[in-house]
Amino acid sequence: MEVERMSLEEFCGKVAEKTPTPGGGAVGAVVGAMACALAEMVANFTRKKRGYEDVEAEMERIVEDMEELRERLFILAGRDMKAFEELMNARRLPEDSEEERMLKRKKVEEAILEAASVPLDVIRAMNQLARELEILAEFGNRNLFSDTLNAVDLCEAVYRVAKVNVLINVKEMENEKTRKEFLEELEELGSQIEGSCRRIREMLEVRLWNSK
Amino acid sequence: MEVERMSLEEFCGKVAEKTPTPGGGAVGAVVGAMACALAEMVANFTRKKRGYEDVEAEMERIVEDMEELRERLFILAGRDMKAFEELMNARRLPEDSEEERMLKRKKVEEAILEAASVPLDVIRAMNQLARELEILAEFGNRNLFSDTLNAVDLCEAVYRVAKVNVLINVKEMENEKTRKEFLEELEELGSQIEGSCRRIREMLEVRLWNSK
Repeated sequence: MEVERMSLEEFCGKVAEKTPTPGGGAVGAVVGAMACALAEMVANFTRKKRGYEDVEAEMERIVEDMEELRERLFILAGRDMKAFEELMNARRLPEDSEEERMLKRKKVEEAILEAASVPLDVIRAMNQLARELEILAEFGNRNLFSDTLNAVDLCEAVYRVAKVNVLINVKEMENEKTRKEFLEELEELGSQIEGSCRRIREMLEVRLWNSK
Repeated sequence: MEVERMSLEEFCGKVAEKTPTPGGGAVGAVVGAMACALAEMVANFTRKKRGYEDVEAEMERIVEDMEELRERLFILAGRDMKAFEELMNARRLPEDSEEERMLKRKKVEEAILEAASVPLDVIRAMNQLARELEILAEFGNRNLFSDTLNAVDLCEAVYRVAKVNVLINVKEMENEKTRKEFLEELEELGSQIEGSCRRIREMLEVRLWNSK
């Protein structure tokens, strides 16, 4: 069953039970989709509102992009579960002969690559979300500043969740070059996301608490 | 329809659309339930595992408590939506006569009290979760340290989301005494949650990154 078709109750039940998936990675991607939905709500409440005509086209774009990003995050939640299962399967392969050992090593390395790529993709999605949230904090409907701030807090948490899951898998990679590439992109994306979140908080916290 | 019965897709769709609820508060409570489910998974993978016999009873208790807390958070998600709707209704009441003005003021104050109480209850739940996560970080199955850390990141984000929603409503309260009580409990709970999260991160980050 596709992740997005599960009820909230069912999904939580599957997370809680004694099976390795869905685990933290899939939960992170799902929470990311919810943060995108909040951003979309803010954009929806800004469209066609008097006083916000200048950003009409931008808001329409954000609504469309957030819908797409939500779908992508649900796909990533499913891919995360699959990647983890593949990795466990690869680790269980026999290694009685030299040939088996080589095959297993190759399969494990491939599985680790996928298991690290999925949370990195989640982080790329959070970077996109964080950029849209900056626009919403600056130009979006001010009645929804608190929802924008809520989305920021969730976006940052999903980034942290995914970062842990990238690092855990990168640690196991044999290929030094790939490992380095992952770490570099992770750092680059991380500083962009943290930067966006910091700027949004500075903007919104003043506006939220210094006005009625 | 009860929140927990909605599919993930449906819930996100309802968040995204141009209706005030579900908003950030309900999303926060739902994410809190997912963080509880992660904690429950860690406890489930610790129960009956060789080497963890000493914490067997404690893990059983955590599994039960997390199931209860998940249910409570779904109820809070529903209550959050209802509280927000009630507040909007109260704000739309007429105020043409002195009698109407008094009635409206009373209804608005009641609705604000409920709208602030729900996120405070979410924070109480996150404080309980954070305490359980400390136990899991110290005594739980070490193969699931990353899931424990993921739960911590989500727990802290849900606390922040709920804090914004308490503050926004407290700002509108007329009763100085009630306002002060809310702010005091918020600060007390906040420092407990932040303390738990900090201690868990210190524990787990060492264990995750300094070992294979």
